[in-house]
Amino acid sequence: MRLSRYFLPVLKETPSEAQIVSHRLMLRAGMIKQSSAGIYSWLPLGFKVLKNIEKIVHEEQVRAGHIPMLMPTLQSADLWKESGRYDAYGPEMLRIRDRQDRDMLYGPTNEEMITDIFRSRVSSYKDLPLTLYHIQWKFRDEIRPRFGVMRGREFLMKDGYNFDLTKEDALHAYNRHLVSYLRTYERMGLQAIPMRADSGPIGGDDTHEFLVLADTGESEVFYDAEITDLKFGKREIDYDSVEACQAVLEEFTSRYARTDETHDEALFNEVPEERRRVARGIEVGQIFYFGTKYSDAMNATVQGPDGKPVAVHMGSHGIGVSRLLGAIIEASHDDKGIIWPEGVTPFHVGIVNLKSGDAEADAACEALYDSFTKLGLEPLYDDRNERAGGKFATMDLIGLPWRITVGPRGLKNGIVELTSRRTGESEELPPEEAVAKVAAIYANL
Amino acid sequence: MRLSRYFLPVLKETPSEAQIVSHRLMLRAGMIKQSSAGIYSWLPLGFKVLKNIEKIVHEEQVRAGHIPMLMPTLQSADLWKESGRYDAYGPEMLRIRDRQDRDMLYGPTNEEMITDIFRSRVSSYKDLPLTLYHIQWKFRDEIRPRFGVMRGREFLMKDGYNFDLTKEDALHAYNRHLVSYLRTYERMGLQAIPMRADSGPIGGDDTHEFLVLADTGESEVFYDAEITDLKFGKREIDYDSVEACQAVLEEFTSRYARTDETHDEALFNEVPEERRRVARGIEVGQIFYFGTKYSDAMNATVQGPDGKPVAVHMGSHGIGVSRLLGAIIEASHDDKGIIWPEGVTPFHVGIVNLKSGDAEADAACEALYDSFTKLGLEPLYDDRNERAGGKFATMDLIGLPWRITVGPRGLKNGIVELTSRRTGESEELPPEEAVAKVAAIYANL
Repeated sequence: MRLSRYFLPVLKETPSEAQIVSHRLMLRAGMIKQSSAGIYSWLPLGFKVLKNIEKIVHEEQVRAGHIPMLMPTLQSADLWKESGRYDAYGPEMLRIRDRQDRDMLYGPTNEEMITDIFRSRVSSYKDLPLTLYHIQWKFRDEIRPRFGVMRGREFLMKDGYNFDLTKEDALHAYNRHLVSYLRTYERMGLQAIPMRADSGPIGGDDTHEFLVLADTGESEVFYDAEITDLKFGKREIDYDSVEACQAVLEEFTSRYARTDETHDEALFNEVPEERRRVARGIEVGQIFYFGTKYSDAMNATVQGPDGKPVAVHMGSHGIGVSRLLGAIIEASHDDKGIIWPEGVTPFHVGIVNLKSGDAEADAACEALYDSFTKLGLEPLYDDRNERAGGKFATMDLIGLPWRITVGPRGLKNGIVELTSRRTGESEELPPEEAVAKVAAIYANL
Repeated sequence: MRLSRYFLPVLKETPSEAQIVSHRLMLRAGMIKQSSAGIYSWLPLGFKVLKNIEKIVHEEQVRAGHIPMLMPTLQSADLWKESGRYDAYGPEMLRIRDRQDRDMLYGPTNEEMITDIFRSRVSSYKDLPLTLYHIQWKFRDEIRPRFGVMRGREFLMKDGYNFDLTKEDALHAYNRHLVSYLRTYERMGLQAIPMRADSGPIGGDDTHEFLVLADTGESEVFYDAEITDLKFGKREIDYDSVEACQAVLEEFTSRYARTDETHDEALFNEVPEERRRVARGIEVGQIFYFGTKYSDAMNATVQGPDGKPVAVHMGSHGIGVSRLLGAIIEASHDDKGIIWPEGVTPFHVGIVNLKSGDAEADAACEALYDSFTKLGLEPLYDDRNERAGGKFATMDLIGLPWRITVGPRGLKNGIVELTSRRTGESEELPPEEAVAKVAAIYANL
């Protein structure tokens, strides 16, 4: 993309309404614009990152054997009356009456609707196990929306639902989700720690939240420092293997890690003192096993092997897709702006032309642009007639992990400058080597 | 995908509530499930086609130089009061009151919101031309939702908005959209004819609707038969070229083609009688130029070259993404089921194992599956223990354009059967040749 043809309305001033750094930076970098309280438009740069995050979530869910679909945003109130949650949910549920005077609502979650789909279309245990998920906009009418996309009212969430014949099968589905979430967050450059949590209005016994450590997190967290050494890495895993998924669960959840909701001081004190950590975290996902809570209430049964009806064991599993943009920025920025992890960056590399209009500099930039494009990478080329200082400031603010600077002086010696946004380190090298180096970094993700 | 692990709840009975063939077939093929009047869940097969259509729309918009973003589903009523449309829109607009008693609405379209984004972030003519678009769920509270996704209440639409300094520039944007739409529909296997139309509540002078001919279409259309010989084909076009885009517009709109709303009997009678056609059509898109209607009402100006404020010239351009599934099926089906065009098919090829459990047949199917997957194609492998007749009926119903049938008898002679869903013709050939033939078809799209 050539910046002269893009829509990147960066702001010079820091917006006063933004209390935390991710909100400030998303506004300043031209990623979002508030349209009303807690509701945002995703400007082109923000939309690109949102799509990148969504793509990773999809890929990892499909890898785990889960099946994508899509439920609508608006739901009939009837299903929620059947489960008993219509009255229980409270004023965060946006209730709507349509022109026929029917009670509707903007879905804050989809347990009822997916259970209704299941019971109307699945009748035999032979169709199990089954895990369906979707990535769809949800609405929760927060009384005080704030922190930008971190606590918005209209937000994008991945929510998945497993249907299994037995508790054992459902716990395998739970473990499979835990593994897939570890992979998902790591691909985004995040360390998200699974912590024992409270089940809240979803219900159920077993639940883990995934928390990203950040000073601005809304939750206080308590954990054993050893946990931050754990990496899922590039290991291959057979998601059908009960043992393999169980082993990952044990590896990542056997050390103490809890939010303030479930914190147990006595247990925490069993952790050697030098490894005890108290910090803050941002919740980016949660998995639940809740057994037959919804299948009982809504009569979602299958015919079991013996011909008798069995209420299915279920769980639900969520990732806060739009919220992740805020979480990533909270975890990865400096005083100049955002520092995108390579896995989610909106453009793979920035090209800064120090002297737009200079024939040689222009030609070198165009050649770099073509080289990256042919390799399937997307460069953002600042081809505007601006001072170099302004161009650097924009690139630093929007946080592309790699920048190539092209100027007449370097070109005389056959070199350009490749700079890492994270370390600030630069090296001079011939253009084709700069391209190869950047391409290798993305090929190894 | 192995069918034994997929969620494809085909229905044996024809649902009585469905009045038209696309609605019936989408229900029977397990693509959608109604959740309330005019609101649908997209089951996995339907979701896949929806994503394929969305992807083509995105690619063709980006090719034309238009910039993707995303606006939220819910809007504040304030902007609509500013444009004067809040009262004008009528009961099809779903009005909502949030917990703070603010007037909100579920966006039926986005002229106001995009104009607000524009005026708050763009101030100079130097930032023009600019075309932004998004693909987002909309809501229109139809009094009688029907025909499945063809006239639903919650529907997915691509809507794009151009901002230009002059009427001439805006008309170029209009033409650019017309060209990109021709490409878009053709990639989906559709012939969509641009017809002079009425602007309705969007307003403005210049507007064309795109109509797909189908007996079940809601509009009566009148056209010169020569128009159906026109193909955009694979021609390369420079979207920056005013002349090139204008020439396409003239080529595709110079012959008589109008809906009943704008039909002019006298003009129609100038078409030679043997070429006059009266038929029915399904509207799948519309483009508008409406000048400064919204920029005047909402004070969206830029500083012109002479330093004075200029109200921008705008247009809006829509494609009914979810409705297209219905339109494609109306245009492409037979009495056995859907016939997907290759451009949008949910799976590239079906593999039917005539004798699941037979070692040789299983191995041959697995080998085909691997070959397609390695080529980047997605097969749907019916590995279930079902009778061959049932497997064929399912494949015909869901409409994959190509099917490979594998059985012990053929394998003895080293052959499988490749069948075209469209023609019903089969040929026997070695498995590797069947793979190569299917791969070549998709490579040439």
